[in-house]
Amino acid sequence: MNLIYVVGIGPGGESQMTLQARQALEECDVIVGYTVYVELLKEILPDKEYLETPMRQEEKRCRMVFEEARKGRKVAMACSGDAGVYGMAGLMMELEGDYPDCQVRAIPGVTAALAGGALLGAPLVHDFVVVSLSDLLTPWEKIEKRLRYGAAADFSICIYNPSSRKRGDYLRRACDILLEEMEGERVCGLACRIGREGERCEILTLKELRERHVDMFTTVFIGNSQTKRMGEKMVTPRGYHLSEQQEG
Amino acid sequence: MNLIYVVGIGPGGESQMTLQARQALEECDVIVGYTVYVELLKEILPDKEYLETPMRQEEKRCRMVFEEARKGRKVAMACSGDAGVYGMAGLMMELEGDYPDCQVRAIPGVTAALAGGALLGAPLVHDFVVVSLSDLLTPWEKIEKRLRYGAAADFSICIYNPSSRKRGDYLRRACDILLEEMEGERVCGLACRIGREGERCEILTLKELRERHVDMFTTVFIGNSQTKRMGEKMVTPRGYHLSEQQEG
Repeated sequence: MNLIYVVGIGPGGESQMTLQARQALEECDVIVGYTVYVELLKEILPDKEYLETPMRQEEKRCRMVFEEARKGRKVAMACSGDAGVYGMAGLMMELEGDYPDCQVRAIPGVTAALAGGALLGAPLVHDFVVVSLSDLLTPWEKIEKRLRYGAAADFSICIYNPSSRKRGDYLRRACDILLEEMEGERVCGLACRIGREGERCEILTLKELRERHVDMFTTVFIGNSQTKRMGEKMVTPRGYHLSEQQEG
Repeated sequence: MNLIYVVGIGPGGESQMTLQARQALEECDVIVGYTVYVELLKEILPDKEYLETPMRQEEKRCRMVFEEARKGRKVAMACSGDAGVYGMAGLMMELEGDYPDCQVRAIPGVTAALAGGALLGAPLVHDFVVVSLSDLLTPWEKIEKRLRYGAAADFSICIYNPSSRKRGDYLRRACDILLEEMEGERVCGLACRIGREGERCEILTLKELRERHVDMFTTVFIGNSQTKRMGEKMVTPRGYHLSEQQEG
């Protein structure tokens, strides 16, 4: 049986990778991934063979991994963040049935919701939703419904893929939906290039967020009705009152 | 300025901790946490001073951390999973204002949604919600609304704190709400004692989940309408069709 790792390498540099992820990559002969992550990994593990792939053509890339593994080589597919959150773990497991001599194992990692949250403070301490604004594989109506229902049920909301070249106004459209359910002063946050050069974060209101252009390396946070700005931090309380009756 | 780390140590053993988390703990003189996590850490870092605290009394525990730090000692508060997901990062930052000579920094970690997801397959590849069933600080009506709206918007759902001594029937109550919005055959998963001794996972239907008693070390996963059982894995596709037009 050829074991294939799908590894979440965390948001950026080596320090946010788990030991398990690092070990899995070290065990491998070949590491496959998007160019930008491969460049990061080459600095950490220079002696591996790397196969770089551009965005898109993801099924083809996955099948390439299975074909390499069948040659008896140990292969890892590297994903930024967590391999199971908008990552390749799902597609690899969907295709696994076509390769009965291969077995796919996911190694979890710190996804942008967590790393960006820590950078901003603690925006996701209580119940939250994660929504991607990419409508390549999801109808926009469904994304819209998820935003609307997430807001109506007072979840904190973390938005992935807020923007791309072709979707320049999607964040504004998302904000317009949210503004139907919540006030313009709602506390929001941006985390950009987490764990990489140029890392920065910013706290702003939903009204301000609506006017903002962000790039594809940005993760967006919308607070729930209890979220506060405390100095330079965005903090969501765990419940309605500080109390000696909390549970871990 | 006394820097205090609130560190997410991941779900279990050392291997699922990030390098950054490990380094932060190594820098510290004192590590504070629940007894069960302190026991895990003592094996990894035996030379630290540990302050163990039982569940509850969390504000008191946080203030103890600030008081230790003001003595000039380097203190870390250790949380399982991610410090910012039902963890202590929020409360520490809420209290930070009372201690102007202290600064709190969160170090992210792999939360149970990610680690449990990897164990089960890839249940959270697309949009998802995270909901806790603990109603100590959240009215049950609000939890119910979040479950209902999460289901109605076709999110995958990850449930934390599905059970405790006093809340033996809460998972059943949650399933009854979900069953109003989705079919009894919906693919669900359980991940128990992730990364620790006795780790196990199980895939089952929502109808079966309703009859199941789980303990407080279990994380529950409810698939969205597209989630499939593929052999021993629970997999949510990234979108509606496999395609060469996907985005990372």
